[in-house]
Amino acid sequence: MSIALAIHGGAGTIDRSAMSTELEAAYRAALEQALKAGWNVLSNNGSSLEAVEIAVRHLEDNELFNAGRGSVFNHEGKNEMDAAIMNGSDLKAGAVAAVRGVKNPITLAKLVMQHTEHVLLAGDGAVEFAEEMGAELADNTYFYTERRWLELEEAIKADRVQLDHSAPAKGTVGAVACDKDGKLAAGTSTGGMTNKKFGRIGDTPLIGLGTYADDVCAVSCTGHGEFFMRGVTAYDVAARMKYRGSDLETAAADSVAALTALGGEGGLIAVDSQGNIALPFNSSGMYRGSATPNGVSIEIYK
Amino acid sequence: MSIALAIHGGAGTIDRSAMSTELEAAYRAALEQALKAGWNVLSNNGSSLEAVEIAVRHLEDNELFNAGRGSVFNHEGKNEMDAAIMNGSDLKAGAVAAVRGVKNPITLAKLVMQHTEHVLLAGDGAVEFAEEMGAELADNTYFYTERRWLELEEAIKADRVQLDHSAPAKGTVGAVACDKDGKLAAGTSTGGMTNKKFGRIGDTPLIGLGTYADDVCAVSCTGHGEFFMRGVTAYDVAARMKYRGSDLETAAADSVAALTALGGEGGLIAVDSQGNIALPFNSSGMYRGSATPNGVSIEIYK
Repeated sequence: MSIALAIHGGAGTIDRSAMSTELEAAYRAALEQALKAGWNVLSNNGSSLEAVEIAVRHLEDNELFNAGRGSVFNHEGKNEMDAAIMNGSDLKAGAVAAVRGVKNPITLAKLVMQHTEHVLLAGDGAVEFAEEMGAELADNTYFYTERRWLELEEAIKADRVQLDHSAPAKGTVGAVACDKDGKLAAGTSTGGMTNKKFGRIGDTPLIGLGTYADDVCAVSCTGHGEFFMRGVTAYDVAARMKYRGSDLETAAADSVAALTALGGEGGLIAVDSQGNIALPFNSSGMYRGSATPNGVSIEIYK
Repeated sequence: MSIALAIHGGAGTIDRSAMSTELEAAYRAALEQALKAGWNVLSNNGSSLEAVEIAVRHLEDNELFNAGRGSVFNHEGKNEMDAAIMNGSDLKAGAVAAVRGVKNPITLAKLVMQHTEHVLLAGDGAVEFAEEMGAELADNTYFYTERRWLELEEAIKADRVQLDHSAPAKGTVGAVACDKDGKLAAGTSTGGMTNKKFGRIGDTPLIGLGTYADDVCAVSCTGHGEFFMRGVTAYDVAARMKYRGSDLETAAADSVAALTALGGEGGLIAVDSQGNIALPFNSSGMYRGSATPNGVSIEIYK
């Protein structure tokens, strides 16, 4: 058993030829920074829950990713964010959906887990809870990025809801960790789909679908959310390990294969209680990083 | 293989001594009517999906149950409803959360499944979609029942959010069916918790948590939702069958045992592709009914 941490910054079509050297370097630096922040927690005997929260906060704070700052705009030109966190050892979980103006949705999800009887709060009610808890808020200017606004204008022009199958990876973020006690946690955060309508909620804030942790494994998913919902993908990895006896790598690969069979695109990051890591995906790329006592790895393409 | 249908009208504390003969007769008649409506579909070679929708619509229309008409009031004195439906043969699913003014949320969930790329729509956006689709709406007076209003006043006075552990069964409804082709479907509908705040969403509209169907089994859950969320209970039944090789009855009982270990109260109804039915629960009662070619059964207590 050893401490281990993996993070992702979204999966989908990542076109190597369209990626400048500078942009790629920026993505790598952002992943490395988030990985370091989480690793510092674990290597100082901190909990997997804390490591996950801190790594995801770093990714939320970076405008390269579609979570927190840098979130895409919905059809009304608003940033509506989802996040979930789960603690494996006691199966406690917290999540928020369609929240606006909250700087770090992953931290709000943790507050839901720790300070309510509930698992999932949505919309204005979740924001009201954030205010009651004194969670850090941020105004529209904080969330505004020109790149995302232009993407919305383009999507509205084309009457297209992204992320669709062929859309470029937008950058849902997530982290999974195993701490020194072999305890696991998972967290995921997203700004959803550009130009989304009708209050669509994806897999990210849904326990067992986009985010899951128990004493066997911790999983965070990214990709075309509806397929992860129909496949119950995050929990499916755990179920294959618990009930079929699969190891982490086999279970994670089989769950992504099931996703592929369903027509879904994306990937997931997973860690087990021995500190093994699996990072399978079926898209052309997934922003990802992992750290174990054996070293650090940061990758973008297949 | 044979056609089979099961329904529930909620699980929790059902106090036999507090139940009048008339009220018990009314519950039994309501369950029987919903069961008949679904059975008519199946016995006329209709699909499991259609049977589930019709059975749930009957339960939503009856003010005895906490779904559709008869839904409880949230903290603001509004009826906010959740529903989900899933078709096992293609793993298609649709769901709505926190919708107001929609007469039959289960039918709106089916419209989401059939007419969008999404699985889950929430809040005003879901209602906007309902309007676009011409789904039947109903005003506040339709949803108002004196009994639920008095419950809200009582809950506000006691500063209590129901359903908590010891609360009386409020009557989330659901149905699962196996049709003549051995195809499965599941649906669940609820008005949530009396006096609920902060936009709480429970397990009912969440695929794999409160509602699930594939080609192995179909499951609809009822009880203290947060525990079904943390246990990923509906999909857990299917996973035990697929990956461990458990039969339906064993898998369903084991999933409820896992729920009990977590501290959760409630139950579920499940059917497999052979037409076997399981109706396990750990509370003092669950309003339930089942129909197979061997006959009809309607029960309330353990």
